[in-house]
Amino acid sequence: MTDTLTLNGQHLILALYQQGVRHLVLSPGSRSTPLALLFAEFERQHDDFKLYVDVDERSAAFFALGLIKGTGEPVALLATSGTAILEYTAAVGEASLSHLPLIILSTNRPQELRGLGTPQTLPQQTVFSDYVKEQVEITLQDGEKDVSEYIDFKLQTLVQRAKNHPVGPVQVELPLRKPLMPEMGTTWPAIQPIRFYQGENQAPQPIEIDLKDKKVLILAGPAKGGQTDTDLLAFAQEHDLPILTDVLSRQRGEGAIYGYDALLKAKNIDDSYRPDLVLRFGATPVSGRILNWLKANHCEIWQIGPATYWDHSRQSSTFFDMTDAAFLKAVRFKKAIQQQDFNQKWQALAQIKASNSAAKLVQILDEAVDEETPIFVANSMAVRDFDNYFTGRHSRLVYANRGANGIDGEVSSAMGLAAASGKKTVFFTGDLTFFHDLTGLNLAKRYNLPIDIIVVNNNGGKIFSHLPQAQAVDYFEEVFQTPQDLDFEKIAAAFSYDFHRLAAPEELAELLNEAATKPRIFLLDSQDD
Amino acid sequence: MTDTLTLNGQHLILALYQQGVRHLVLSPGSRSTPLALLFAEFERQHDDFKLYVDVDERSAAFFALGLIKGTGEPVALLATSGTAILEYTAAVGEASLSHLPLIILSTNRPQELRGLGTPQTLPQQTVFSDYVKEQVEITLQDGEKDVSEYIDFKLQTLVQRAKNHPVGPVQVELPLRKPLMPEMGTTWPAIQPIRFYQGENQAPQPIEIDLKDKKVLILAGPAKGGQTDTDLLAFAQEHDLPILTDVLSRQRGEGAIYGYDALLKAKNIDDSYRPDLVLRFGATPVSGRILNWLKANHCEIWQIGPATYWDHSRQSSTFFDMTDAAFLKAVRFKKAIQQQDFNQKWQALAQIKASNSAAKLVQILDEAVDEETPIFVANSMAVRDFDNYFTGRHSRLVYANRGANGIDGEVSSAMGLAAASGKKTVFFTGDLTFFHDLTGLNLAKRYNLPIDIIVVNNNGGKIFSHLPQAQAVDYFEEVFQTPQDLDFEKIAAAFSYDFHRLAAPEELAELLNEAATKPRIFLLDSQDD
Repeated sequence: MTDTLTLNGQHLILALYQQGVRHLVLSPGSRSTPLALLFAEFERQHDDFKLYVDVDERSAAFFALGLIKGTGEPVALLATSGTAILEYTAAVGEASLSHLPLIILSTNRPQELRGLGTPQTLPQQTVFSDYVKEQVEITLQDGEKDVSEYIDFKLQTLVQRAKNHPVGPVQVELPLRKPLMPEMGTTWPAIQPIRFYQGENQAPQPIEIDLKDKKVLILAGPAKGGQTDTDLLAFAQEHDLPILTDVLSRQRGEGAIYGYDALLKAKNIDDSYRPDLVLRFGATPVSGRILNWLKANHCEIWQIGPATYWDHSRQSSTFFDMTDAAFLKAVRFKKAIQQQDFNQKWQALAQIKASNSAAKLVQILDEAVDEETPIFVANSMAVRDFDNYFTGRHSRLVYANRGANGIDGEVSSAMGLAAASGKKTVFFTGDLTFFHDLTGLNLAKRYNLPIDIIVVNNNGGKIFSHLPQAQAVDYFEEVFQTPQDLDFEKIAAAFSYDFHRLAAPEELAELLNEAATKPRIFLLDSQDD
Repeated sequence: MTDTLTLNGQHLILALYQQGVRHLVLSPGSRSTPLALLFAEFERQHDDFKLYVDVDERSAAFFALGLIKGTGEPVALLATSGTAILEYTAAVGEASLSHLPLIILSTNRPQELRGLGTPQTLPQQTVFSDYVKEQVEITLQDGEKDVSEYIDFKLQTLVQRAKNHPVGPVQVELPLRKPLMPEMGTTWPAIQPIRFYQGENQAPQPIEIDLKDKKVLILAGPAKGGQTDTDLLAFAQEHDLPILTDVLSRQRGEGAIYGYDALLKAKNIDDSYRPDLVLRFGATPVSGRILNWLKANHCEIWQIGPATYWDHSRQSSTFFDMTDAAFLKAVRFKKAIQQQDFNQKWQALAQIKASNSAAKLVQILDEAVDEETPIFVANSMAVRDFDNYFTGRHSRLVYANRGANGIDGEVSSAMGLAAASGKKTVFFTGDLTFFHDLTGLNLAKRYNLPIDIIVVNNNGGKIFSHLPQAQAVDYFEEVFQTPQDLDFEKIAAAFSYDFHRLAAPEELAELLNEAATKPRIFLLDSQDD
């Protein structure tokens, strides 16, 4: 007879697995020992389950976000009690806003050791309170026979809740008593998978749009959770609708409009481009300017997709709380000539020429990658340059952490994406973002991840030079630009990356195509705007 | 007339300053711009105010903990909205448990941009809820004339609350609207300092202890907040009480007993050493064994000091909720011969010989440092070796993060201690802890901090080999030991440290005394137990 801790630990792991959890990211510690060992045993028994180990819990959590983006599946995190759990907070906040099904397994001391100043013991039940959809505390070491059955049921429904709209993180708090050793090598129980069916999420009736009255435009924002299975571009072309595509929309390609942020900045888009109605898909676009312009022009905005009711331009008049596909199926257009003219007018816009070296790198990458190459783009300036200059001509697989838009943990998220894809993956970043998550660099060596990191180095926070504080010249460098004077070549050497310093952006194309035996860092020193 | 934002920002900074805040640690961002610039202006006007900049907010927060430990003063943190604030969480948890007056200034978007999916916008009012003593939201951009006066009063009392028992962190949430530029170069207002007087915290009457009935022992735990002004050692000697001194107690020296954890492990302390009554000062000792032994021997425990009512051995029978000094003043002993014998018996214990290289390094350091050298010790094995082998013969200035005992942020905390002391500071750590906080390494160069880092490298988590999971040999290396295979020499080079690989612990003594022109890393590869 298997002991209670082992048996219930097995039930917990099986319940996660039954609902599609195929990856665990573990940060080692004492309190998490029984589950860590059982997960390790489970991994050896299941070819389709993978355990990753990352000692920096912050890095581990952001790595998990990359895994989710790349696989579209829920991913579990496991750590020991105390500040280890608190290190997850930033990634949990990001997962909440970017709608990623992150399953946090937080171990803790048992109740009789709480609130007594016991080492590594903090209240953990509330730390994610606003960011997790549900939190449940489960005592594995409870021999009551209903408990195993409860774990089967509750854990499966909890994973389902994470995956349901609005997708988001959930937490399982696990108080554990010593002894913390499970029995290894026992026969695992079988558990009954729960099946979940959801309504087809159809519009109740056809949605009529009369194009005689209205010029209509599609704004395709970032694909929610990084995943999409809807071809908005084909739909737009069928109906002669100009489609503005965010770089994270996965809808860029022939006929898609991009670079509108730079065009708006250059005032190359004036009020004559105004649509009457905007069909907005996906999450908040990278370009803030397009939202401001639509607002200034009093365009009507319809938002389509499982509704979060989020719109910081506060302009949406109508929400279609259904899948994109359901909307496309239900919508009916009355055609008119003017829509074709309107589309052609948008299509005819000439792109703004890349004037800085980061933008040139983006264009080179755009040409150099193949359609299967995923690209993780850092926040701050990098994602803005991508939004303006990456056409998605070859690969549309562009990802970023655009929930809370932090510059933390991004190396690790890129590594998670590389681990999920198993293919050559590109991480495009500025120097501060690269520096912020140094520990994440070590994951490439540990898991043999085929990653190319492209760093645009302007030795500090370039984004601030675009903001009003640049006027405070006496304080600007100390307080905002914060040059770190990093020696990238030596950092690359310390973590066993091949290092290439680019004398000019153009050098990237050839180097990228060379066969790589190691992860690589390409650095371009850049002092321009 | 100064604009409202500038004026109220100045009031906020002056209020902090009036109550003893002399350091700000800033992580740059957009939303925090007005306060960042005003703090920078303030720093140029005040020689006794210092602004530090650290782009990794996690590192910044742990750096602030080191500053607090070294100065004994409250320290403020400032960051921009979003995950930047969440990066503080682990250090705030540690500050809560280790009673450090940390003042968190969290900037955020204004109310009209919340809950709309606005970039970098998360609920921030609850993320520290269990760890901060008080949270207040202040709208600086409010022209109502009472607001400036409110800021003067509320911020001064808030800092005082952080400093009051139980000492701990407080948060000021600061929603800010664009434009975010303050007026620079204006005349700052004068504000009225509030004076706080506290009762003398005296015992109401003499406390009588009859040593005819009882053998009494002192257990001096870690000095709360790293600070002490009470000489328990002199008191113990005056009254013939054996005094067991934690390495963080700042009470070690001639006549103090240490190394009891190793002695207990070796069973060199038996029940004949049993005290009837233990006077326990300070926080939870590093040695868990001593608490277990006192519990197994049913000793009576009195806890002295401003009470947290924390004791995870759950054995304290009596709490003296007063300062250590007040207790020492009030206590009266009836003497007896046997107490002298009891003291001599404890004093006569022969120390356990250091058998591993980390312990030898500790002993070498113990001899090599002078009385003004502060030492920051990492958690996990490092602090245990210190507790057993560091006599404090020369320096008693030993610090560690012993609230939540995490291995995160420790490089940065050591840097904070070095910045606070302005003197050569030693950081003693294992390799995983060193790796966990790599970004913290860059602070030494940025602020010219005179730090010597001593790394005991066993390529992974040695502590786990002392725990039961070491039996799970099939999984041990992957899941627990997690060798990182770091190239320390190259890491040192990347951050401009001098690097010394020690062939044997004995080499440290001479190298330590050589004049250093740069921060240094001393590495000892160690495969022993």
